[in-house]
Amino acid sequence: MPSTTPNAHSDQAPRTHRKVVLASRPAGIPQAEHFRIVESPIPELQDGQFLVRNDFLSVDPAMRGWVNAAANYSDPVPIEGVMRSFTAGVVVASRHAGYSEGDAVMGMLGWQEYAVSDGSDIRRKVVETDLPLSLSLGVLGLNGVTAYFALTEMGEPRSGETVVVSTAAGAVGSAVGQIAAILGCRTIGITGGADKVRICTEEFGYDLAVDYKDAGFAESLALACAGGVDVYYDNTAGRISDTVLPLINKRARIVVCGTASIANWEPWPTGPRVERHLLVKAARMQGFLVWDFEHRYEEAVAKLAPWVRSGRLKYREEILDGLESAPDAIAGLYRGDNLGKRIIRLAH
Amino acid sequence: MPSTTPNAHSDQAPRTHRKVVLASRPAGIPQAEHFRIVESPIPELQDGQFLVRNDFLSVDPAMRGWVNAAANYSDPVPIEGVMRSFTAGVVVASRHAGYSEGDAVMGMLGWQEYAVSDGSDIRRKVVETDLPLSLSLGVLGLNGVTAYFALTEMGEPRSGETVVVSTAAGAVGSAVGQIAAILGCRTIGITGGADKVRICTEEFGYDLAVDYKDAGFAESLALACAGGVDVYYDNTAGRISDTVLPLINKRARIVVCGTASIANWEPWPTGPRVERHLLVKAARMQGFLVWDFEHRYEEAVAKLAPWVRSGRLKYREEILDGLESAPDAIAGLYRGDNLGKRIIRLAH
Repeated sequence: MPSTTPNAHSDQAPRTHRKVVLASRPAGIPQAEHFRIVESPIPELQDGQFLVRNDFLSVDPAMRGWVNAAANYSDPVPIEGVMRSFTAGVVVASRHAGYSEGDAVMGMLGWQEYAVSDGSDIRRKVVETDLPLSLSLGVLGLNGVTAYFALTEMGEPRSGETVVVSTAAGAVGSAVGQIAAILGCRTIGITGGADKVRICTEEFGYDLAVDYKDAGFAESLALACAGGVDVYYDNTAGRISDTVLPLINKRARIVVCGTASIANWEPWPTGPRVERHLLVKAARMQGFLVWDFEHRYEEAVAKLAPWVRSGRLKYREEILDGLESAPDAIAGLYRGDNLGKRIIRLAH
Repeated sequence: MPSTTPNAHSDQAPRTHRKVVLASRPAGIPQAEHFRIVESPIPELQDGQFLVRNDFLSVDPAMRGWVNAAANYSDPVPIEGVMRSFTAGVVVASRHAGYSEGDAVMGMLGWQEYAVSDGSDIRRKVVETDLPLSLSLGVLGLNGVTAYFALTEMGEPRSGETVVVSTAAGAVGSAVGQIAAILGCRTIGITGGADKVRICTEEFGYDLAVDYKDAGFAESLALACAGGVDVYYDNTAGRISDTVLPLINKRARIVVCGTASIANWEPWPTGPRVERHLLVKAARMQGFLVWDFEHRYEEAVAKLAPWVRSGRLKYREEILDGLESAPDAIAGLYRGDNLGKRIIRLAH
């Protein structure tokens, strides 16, 4: 598709675009075959609407939940509906007083090339125009905001404490570890494979990183956390959490942000009971939903952006090119074959 | 033993007394055979000491942990040492400026008839002299203080919310339920057996009570909590908690105060994973140790005592007579054969 600026009132505007729709409802992790790419007309703009050209589509673990039938955070994406996702793009035509051509926006516009919006599905205008627009889906987007509030509001780390991070090299985990270090904590990363272990310490500045795929994982983690664990950023549940829990200190804070290691909740998996750990240590285990901090989004971005500019907060992006890469992109996340924030870049 | 006032300087003072010592270390719940009653001399008072006649000895579930070898809240009771326990009694002789003959005291003086104290093991002077002294071990003691802070500080109930209480007819649970009702909550009790179900609603004022021994327990609980559970006072862990967790509301608070349903933690028991419940509901599960609120003890008693006097906060005591009833008393708690706060009364 040529890189022209479409205009709803011009003959140069694209009249059709492509989008990724949910073809069938998966049980568990959505695979490529659960999606279909379709071509459809772009609706004409009405008063109060504007057209966004999506330059970047987000791929997030949570999207698995958005297509499952089970009651969850929000209604499931309907069959034949555009796959819900965050996107970053540019306003290319507007009949809305609040949005002008050229405005960079981040919102929930879905896996499609263009989107007509009335503003209700826009999260923010992207004002950090000195930084790449894609960051608004990653370290300056939900990932960074999640890391910031999950750590500071629920983890409540104090300088000198030990913070353990699962999915330590991931888009959220790597930010959690680096923010914890900025706040004066000792940081221990848990990740899979020698490459990611190296990246954790060399790139993301963890004091130590431990490989959960290693046979000696439990011993290595206990050694790395000889003084106990004060904050555990839990993005995995499962065996990794089971190894961390016995190491927690008095009044530890466990922030549950994800359950990446659990492929399926039907049947509901079992594990070692947590009650006694929590009781004996007067510890806290708490689920974090970033939506609860939606009203404080700009506060977090205002903290994160200067850290990114100064190089104290590093990030990795994994760019997939073209809408064709979307259908398999969530499954790929759960295969663990990515490193960094996974983003689909659309050429227009 | 005659009911005289002993005096360290007088020939009328008892020179010996009886005490319950730990004979061997149990794995799991201590049974009668793990204790032995011995007669021993009462040490002569030194300057800065006073002699307490223990009138009531406490029997608490937590005492199980005090005799186990595993690292726990405090060092285990040594073999041949006096069994650690709360007691309520009266100062009968004093060479301590802060304590006078006749002072009623509650402290950690152990399962013995008399105790020499320097004040460090005294928790408080009992000032509610219009109420039975035994209450300082129950509804005005650790039980009531636990109920008050566990509910108000960690449960954070709001008027109109639904509070579910396990061990609902127990010494702590019954107070949790009644305090929640005083604070305007809807209260659902979980207890075992038709008698206790009846006592929960008729005596302790629960809106509904459910029998966990009933085959239809899960269905009954779901029905009783049709609007979901906002606060869960968890004193059992195990199957009861597994039944409550799927019913929690958004931002529910689960206060873990005990694990009464778990007979043994070696091997560590498994159960349905809690992470997803906590995550999807942005809920909190937190261990409560009353020691963390030690400095606010009087604040709680000052709230509780007027409720007791006015009849809004009812309690049950189960009085066992004589030191001979002590060795089997903890095991009895775990057999579930008691109702109300279990106390041993000593005749002097």
